[in-house]
Amino acid sequence: MQTQTLERLESNVRTYSRSFPVVFTKARNARLTDENGREYIDFLAGAGTLNYGHNNPHLKQALLDYLDSDGIVHGLDFWTAAKRDYLETLEEVILKPRGLEYKVHLPGPTGTNAVEAAIRLARVAQGRHNIVTFTNGFHGVTMGALATTGNRKFREATGGIPLQGSAFMPYDGYMGEHADSLDYFEKLLGDNSSGLDLPAAVIVETVQGEGGINVAGLDWLKRLEAICRDNGILLIVDDIQAGCGRTGKFFSFEHAGIKPDIVTNSKSLSGFGLPFAHVLMRPDLDKWKPGQYNGTFRGFNLAFATAAAAMRQYWRDDTFERDVQRKGRVVEDRFQKIAAWISEQGVPASERGRGLMRGIDLGDGDLADKITAKAFEKGLVIETSGQAGEVVKCLCPLTIPDEDLLEGLDILEASVREVMA
Amino acid sequence: MQTQTLERLESNVRTYSRSFPVVFTKARNARLTDENGREYIDFLAGAGTLNYGHNNPHLKQALLDYLDSDGIVHGLDFWTAAKRDYLETLEEVILKPRGLEYKVHLPGPTGTNAVEAAIRLARVAQGRHNIVTFTNGFHGVTMGALATTGNRKFREATGGIPLQGSAFMPYDGYMGEHADSLDYFEKLLGDNSSGLDLPAAVIVETVQGEGGINVAGLDWLKRLEAICRDNGILLIVDDIQAGCGRTGKFFSFEHAGIKPDIVTNSKSLSGFGLPFAHVLMRPDLDKWKPGQYNGTFRGFNLAFATAAAAMRQYWRDDTFERDVQRKGRVVEDRFQKIAAWISEQGVPASERGRGLMRGIDLGDGDLADKITAKAFEKGLVIETSGQAGEVVKCLCPLTIPDEDLLEGLDILEASVREVMA
Amino acid sequence: MQTQTLERLESNVRTYSRSFPVVFTKARNARLTDENGREYIDFLAGAGTLNYGHNNPHLKQALLDYLDSDGIVHGLDFWTAAKRDYLETLEEVILKPRGLEYKVHLPGPTGTNAVEAAIRLARVAQGRHNIVTFTNGFHGVTMGALATTGNRKFREATGGIPLQGSAFMPYDGYMGEHADSLDYFEKLLGDNSSGLDLPAAVIVETVQGEGGINVAGLDWLKRLEAICRDNGILLIVDDIQAGCGRTGKFFSFEHAGIKPDIVTNSKSLSGFGLPFAHVLMRPDLDKWKPGQYNGTFRGFNLAFATAAAAMRQYWRDDTFERDVQRKGRVVEDRFQKIAAWISEQGVPASERGRGLMRGIDLGDGDLADKITAKAFEKGLVIETSGQAGEVVKCLCPLTIPDEDLLEGLDILEASVREVMA
Amino acid sequence: MQTQTLERLESNVRTYSRSFPVVFTKARNARLTDENGREYIDFLAGAGTLNYGHNNPHLKQALLDYLDSDGIVHGLDFWTAAKRDYLETLEEVILKPRGLEYKVHLPGPTGTNAVEAAIRLARVAQGRHNIVTFTNGFHGVTMGALATTGNRKFREATGGIPLQGSAFMPYDGYMGEHADSLDYFEKLLGDNSSGLDLPAAVIVETVQGEGGINVAGLDWLKRLEAICRDNGILLIVDDIQAGCGRTGKFFSFEHAGIKPDIVTNSKSLSGFGLPFAHVLMRPDLDKWKPGQYNGTFRGFNLAFATAAAAMRQYWRDDTFERDVQRKGRVVEDRFQKIAAWISEQGVPASERGRGLMRGIDLGDGDLADKITAKAFEKGLVIETSGQAGEVVKCLCPLTIPDEDLLEGLDILEASVREVMA
Repeated sequence: MQTQTLERLESNVRTYSRSFPVVFTKARNARLTDENGREYIDFLAGAGTLNYGHNNPHLKQALLDYLDSDGIVHGLDFWTAAKRDYLETLEEVILKPRGLEYKVHLPGPTGTNAVEAAIRLARVAQGRHNIVTFTNGFHGVTMGALATTGNRKFREATGGIPLQGSAFMPYDGYMGEHADSLDYFEKLLGDNSSGLDLPAAVIVETVQGEGGINVAGLDWLKRLEAICRDNGILLIVDDIQAGCGRTGKFFSFEHAGIKPDIVTNSKSLSGFGLPFAHVLMRPDLDKWKPGQYNGTFRGFNLAFATAAAAMRQYWRDDTFERDVQRKGRVVEDRFQKIAAWISEQGVPASERGRGLMRGIDLGDGDLADKITAKAFEKGLVIETSGQAGEVVKCLCPLTIPDEDLLEGLDILEASVREVMA
Repeated sequence: MQTQTLERLESNVRTYSRSFPVVFTKARNARLTDENGREYIDFLAGAGTLNYGHNNPHLKQALLDYLDSDGIVHGLDFWTAAKRDYLETLEEVILKPRGLEYKVHLPGPTGTNAVEAAIRLARVAQGRHNIVTFTNGFHGVTMGALATTGNRKFREATGGIPLQGSAFMPYDGYMGEHADSLDYFEKLLGDNSSGLDLPAAVIVETVQGEGGINVAGLDWLKRLEAICRDNGILLIVDDIQAGCGRTGKFFSFEHAGIKPDIVTNSKSLSGFGLPFAHVLMRPDLDKWKPGQYNGTFRGFNLAFATAAAAMRQYWRDDTFERDVQRKGRVVEDRFQKIAAWISEQGVPASERGRGLMRGIDLGDGDLADKITAKAFEKGLVIETSGQAGEVVKCLCPLTIPDEDLLEGLDILEASVREVMA
Repeated sequence: MQTQTLERLESNVRTYSRSFPVVFTKARNARLTDENGREYIDFLAGAGTLNYGHNNPHLKQALLDYLDSDGIVHGLDFWTAAKRDYLETLEEVILKPRGLEYKVHLPGPTGTNAVEAAIRLARVAQGRHNIVTFTNGFHGVTMGALATTGNRKFREATGGIPLQGSAFMPYDGYMGEHADSLDYFEKLLGDNSSGLDLPAAVIVETVQGEGGINVAGLDWLKRLEAICRDNGILLIVDDIQAGCGRTGKFFSFEHAGIKPDIVTNSKSLSGFGLPFAHVLMRPDLDKWKPGQYNGTFRGFNLAFATAAAAMRQYWRDDTFERDVQRKGRVVEDRFQKIAAWISEQGVPASERGRGLMRGIDLGDGDLADKITAKAFEKGLVIETSGQAGEVVKCLCPLTIPDEDLLEGLDILEASVREVMA
Repeated sequence: MQTQTLERLESNVRTYSRSFPVVFTKARNARLTDENGREYIDFLAGAGTLNYGHNNPHLKQALLDYLDSDGIVHGLDFWTAAKRDYLETLEEVILKPRGLEYKVHLPGPTGTNAVEAAIRLARVAQGRHNIVTFTNGFHGVTMGALATTGNRKFREATGGIPLQGSAFMPYDGYMGEHADSLDYFEKLLGDNSSGLDLPAAVIVETVQGEGGINVAGLDWLKRLEAICRDNGILLIVDDIQAGCGRTGKFFSFEHAGIKPDIVTNSKSLSGFGLPFAHVLMRPDLDKWKPGQYNGTFRGFNLAFATAAAAMRQYWRDDTFERDVQRKGRVVEDRFQKIAAWISEQGVPASERGRGLMRGIDLGDGDLADKITAKAFEKGLVIETSGQAGEVVKCLCPLTIPDEDLLEGLDILEASVREVMA
């Protein structure tokens, strides 16, 4: 594989090609192929972007049909038949059956853009600036979104500009067993000199992906919603990584039975890996004036086509979500066993997650790196997450065949055993 | 055409569907078709995103071939064969022949993301925060980029947060005939109590698209580069709208013979309307640490395929750019005639632009709106720009057939005459 | 008393004249006299500015002597004999005996100015911006200082500008019995994605005056110092209200045996109620360049004269501080009895404080207001503090005669009994 | 003179003691005396703080009387007889005769505090944040005020935090003869994409003291007021240095016949060099809620006493202001002659100023430094101002005896001739 020009021409900022230093050429569902023809099982899946697998044939067909018809590919925010179909399908297949009523904002086609639009809308609608976000939260790296992202690596790369307009609260479980993080949040809210400016909104992931597969309890989420309602604070669920079925429901917040005021989706929203994002908002919150938020690629028509196809293919009934839950339990069981074995070796480890968003916390980033490196040698693409990279994370395609899933889990287990031998 | 669900479900923020309230279904080169089968000539072209026309067959073929091979669609910033081909083609076809040496950062696939990455790199590399930008400049709406964008409409929709880290200077010609805007900039730079913090970088469009087709003189650009060099300031050319051939050269700054330290491209970079952007930087400025700037859709492989195809198809020799320049003169001549006629009616009007980025300044946004509305009635999609929407702007595909170009111009001229009759 | 012109001409911002709506004319030690000749015992003492009482005769004599000699009153930051005497006395009487070595910055003559200078120095010396401050902390209201002040009342009066450059941590005891606020701070510091930017400094009051006489434990303060040292964070003690003997030691941090990197003093520093402030800094932290922080009234010579006199009069041995501690115990005992009686009436109340900085927490701002209003009727000037004004606060002059102290306590107790009868 | 302890204990930030490295002990009107008994004529006068001279006997008497009566020295913002007298005298002697109606805010006793309060009030009253300020403007160094101050020296000492909430416009004459700075301001205001956020207020000095004795034309000021009125922008005149008679009128803006919405005074307001400041505001702008802006030393009673005495002594009729104007012409004539002589030596120099606020612009900071150093040798205390210290500035007491004024001018002229010989 020829990589010199890649190394010479691409910025130092490149990251995944350091862990997986091969040139990929093809991919199908849960399998990647490199230039030498070697195959890898993919437990990374675009960090949650390929819930329906690489080159999903149903979605590819929708894309090819659209291209074949000379459908509009790019039209700013023109009305197109593809957009209409997307919106109607979203309403009929996703929103109505879940008792949700939202209007749709189509900002730029990335998660960070959706977050920027969501928090700006919250500020405009509320007339105040503060956005409460949580420890280990990740919501993107453009300057507005970055203020709500916890990672020092990104925060320190602003060239010295302090990030403004947000305040961090401890996530569920962050303060240990004896203290409740929402007790603390409520105390600050009710204290006139706590230093916490009354928030316009709270932004939260129900399961923190980049933060290390931290799972908010369903009661914690319900209480968070109640605190927001009681204090006139909007609740934004950032469902960019955990949404689109990853946790076993289309929206990750369905498990808790809450109804956020604003929702962001991206990553697997197009279903085919195409850049795409939307913001869902309670209709009465739609305080935007025409054109007050724009962007060249707002409303990407190829993504409308594949996203509508994905909703129709997978979400008309509960077959798919039950299958995801089933596979989630498979991963859960195996991860628990692996974690138990690791703990027996003297490294306290634990499993956690929801649906097919799962991790093993090793409490040690170096060890986790060795395990994922070993797994790559053996043909499994898997990454770590968490503040120190201490959590081995499984985000395999939801459509992964059982045999690939099991093979991937076998590779991971073997890698753990080899590294810790 | 059924538009009720669109009106009901899409946020009030929608804008183009207010000027062009039809549902588009198909498009080919410079022609759009609505759901009723009516055709429109497209002088908007995705606000400069479709320089090679809608559904360009060469680029579509590259896209279909890639899809047919099950090439990687989404792989975060994995090395792929498509990425390598893109980088090598960029170097060979574009950079080397122009004597340019840059490294490439692939941030999120939108212009605003490229600007965020560019100005953040400048701050990190320089260790100071101030970015000088220009009156009527437009560089995107995420919070970092928005600080460099002049439009009050966007700036006032931050929910009250002051935008920070930038300072506005008057663009070429902004101060009228008797004062030179760069004299003013130089005076501020040399004055220890001017209030201008020593800039990390200047960001400039050589022709301001959203700002009203304001054209920076070539001497002005050269002097701006010299001032930057003399003061240790980086020069960023935002070539998102003016680049990719729009002005008759691949990079709009080639006309001036300058070499920016950092360049941003997006819009027509993929050639096919796919979300895509890159930042080019002088190799020694690549101060990024691995992973310090990320994003799910950094490096969109379908766009690599079409972008490489576009470079090979149009930029291997000067045939295409000479054709663009020829068409530019056609538009220039007609616009001058139209402006002269308008002036004769008592409304002082003038033509301006470079290459196929051209406008007629009517000094009156209402009149401009009436003209573009009339043109749409007659089958021409064309928009206004400028701080009050006072400039009718032609950004037709560079590949527009002469007959479509002339028909579009005829429609425009007829619309002007009808409205002003 | 004629108050119409005061009401008409003074801004609505006025505050104490609402609680104490009389016109004062004279004052001596712990007694104020209004225009009708009525006397009041003063348990407010300029919110801690008059530790040595009103018109202290020793200090007044120093002032009159200075004026009599035509000494320089105002000289920007000229060297004067008065400044030299102040610095030398500070070193000899205060710093050396306590094993402290500091350089002295004389910024503008107010507490908020000292805080602005202190945190700016910390940022410059450390090359990073974040200042950690605590819930219920009060450090002044100019924009730099305000970012470290918790009160929503002030924070919301910025005209919408988010305050930047600080992060709030829970003060000692804030999280209740089961959670340690420094455990939380340490967890955030050690977590790469906690959202807490590595602080340049921590700013803390050892006893929070405005915040409600919240008392940091001595072990908590020692551990805070240790955390700062371990993480390369500067420790700033804001001793503006708690310093100059208020807690029974010249510096309030002496009780804990810690040595802050930077200390701010103001309020009682001049001893006579004159505007005056200084910043003390570890000599190696003095990274200021000449003239980088200025102000017309930096170094007020009349205050040099009275401050030096105060140090010589009260701090040459431990007589004064032992007397303050003794009176502190008198107030403590009585406050405990009063709090116990209140609790017996069904309103849980408690006493807290250090030295002569003491309060009764009633948990109810309205009740506290009624008590202080009743006390004023009976001839005692006393105010509330705390986030809801729920703490009745005693900050009487340290020089208060025992009979005035006891009379004041009697009035307070009688007021409590009357209000709660 | 013993200066070692001063050098050892005082922060590096000290500045005037570098130019005038002696220890001063006494002062009377326009004469300073050092510890060796040497006398100096004072053309600096506390940078405009001692308009009535050092130890003015009338004001000293008022101060001694107040102290003798055991008047309240410090009482937070209590109503006192001294405050009432101050407010009534201000209204009767100053405001009413000039047709001005203002309410009075007494913030902390420094200029920067008055500016912080003024701009914050403007933001609160207007509901928007932007404050327009001018090149070479100086309005203080606390973070809120600093955003409106042009000096890079201070702006770069924030530890990297960008200053926010302000925009700089060119002051009168800044753009040279051919461009009008208010034309530029108006163009930006009327341009929807100029990057200038609609200002809440403009803050301006009618003569810039620190900025180099730059004098705004009276027509320019009138037009600035008109632009503000037309655009709903508040006009704040910062009269901290130029006010209190310095330009030959009590308020410097009287010359132009304008009525600012908000005025700040400090420096010579107390008349005796005591820290003191107020903000005057149109009564309907008083949007402060009780206690929304506070500070320990708001309302310094000793300053009330001396300030009221100064108003009564000097401003009951126009005798004093005519005398100031007369002396101003004396300085003007001599400065013109000196400037002409310097120009003849090949260094283009010019005189400028208003009243007794005057300077000679040498266009060369090193030369100016040599001249003021030479003058100090000869017994004259005088400083430079301007962005490069290129302007020798005369701010002698307004009460200077003619013989001292002439002697000072003679010394300056001799110094110029010696240095340039």
